[in-house]
Amino acid sequence: MGMPMEVNTMIVTKGKEERIGKNDFSLVKSGYRLYPIDIPVSVRKTKNSEDIGTAYIKKVSWEKNETHIVYELTSLHSVN
Amino acid sequence: MGMPMEVNTMIVTKGKEERIGKNDFSLVKSGYRLYPIDIPVSVRKTKNSEDIGTAYIKKVSWEKNETHIVYELTSLHSVN
Amino acid sequence: MGMPMEVNTMIVTKGKEERIGKNDFSLVKSGYRLYPIDIPVSVRKTKNSEDIGTAYIKKVSWEKNETHIVYELTSLHSVN
Amino acid sequence: MGMPMEVNTMIVTKGKEERIGKNDFSLVKSGYRLYPIDIPVSVRKTKNSEDIGTAYIKKVSWEKNETHIVYELTSLHSVN
Repeated sequence: MGMPMEVNTMIVTKGKEERIGKNDFSLVKSGYRLYPIDIPVSVRKTKNSEDIGTAYIKKVSWEKNETHIVYELTSLHSVN
Repeated sequence: MGMPMEVNTMIVTKGKEERIGKNDFSLVKSGYRLYPIDIPVSVRKTKNSEDIGTAYIKKVSWEKNETHIVYELTSLHSVN
Repeated sequence: MGMPMEVNTMIVTKGKEERIGKNDFSLVKSGYRLYPIDIPVSVRKTKNSEDIGTAYIKKVSWEKNETHIVYELTSLHSVN
Repeated sequence: MGMPMEVNTMIVTKGKEERIGKNDFSLVKSGYRLYPIDIPVSVRKTKNSEDIGTAYIKKVSWEKNETHIVYELTSLHSVN
């Protein structure tokens, strides 16, 4: 009786995030993933790219083998 | 940088569940709790009472320091 | 950056447990598994068999993609 | 029936780490903490200080309300 889950320490968007507010974004990931909520996490476009910025995850939900997160981008790293 | 949560192995309703379908119930618990999804778990009224039945949790969501779950009661133990 | 693990709600021995004390047993499982510690969990021989008894997990360790647990069997269900 | 656990996304040493090999360190933290294993994590002296470097956690064990970790420091950020 086990439930597979992946512990995630950062948000990897793969460019699939949707803006739902001024600084708020929603993102759907496959499988059940454990994200830290209410603490600062790095946001990246891909696993090995530089940090885009820092976010607070405000909501996590798991259903039908998907994980939905809502996060607020609180700082954006300057990119030149 | 730590996020407190509680690993839960069963559903303890404390009589606060709401029926939202034929065999489906919704329940709100305080804090962030990790529940196993899609596998059979025991349902109890209180921590130390007998099992009421068995359920499958279909949805878990975390927000504002609360955990919302939706579960389907799949078997009911006879109670006399 | 994700770490796969499995949330486990009971101990499934598959007969591979080793007795290391009067009521204490050690068991090695593949992969990283999250077990509840210090709370009563069911012990079974296989996933779908009846409960053998109830145990308290006293130690869990993760290393080299294996999970080692030490548990104390606190009650044994009568088997005829 | 719940087991309190804290999800940790980085190693905060508070200067309490013990060197056990060339680049290997051991650290004991209070309570049960979930650390990502086998993936790169930041190492800091305090929660709000700069990163000291990057490490891979190679072993995590939970017992008697403590979490023991062994990690290998794989890169050290230059500090002037």
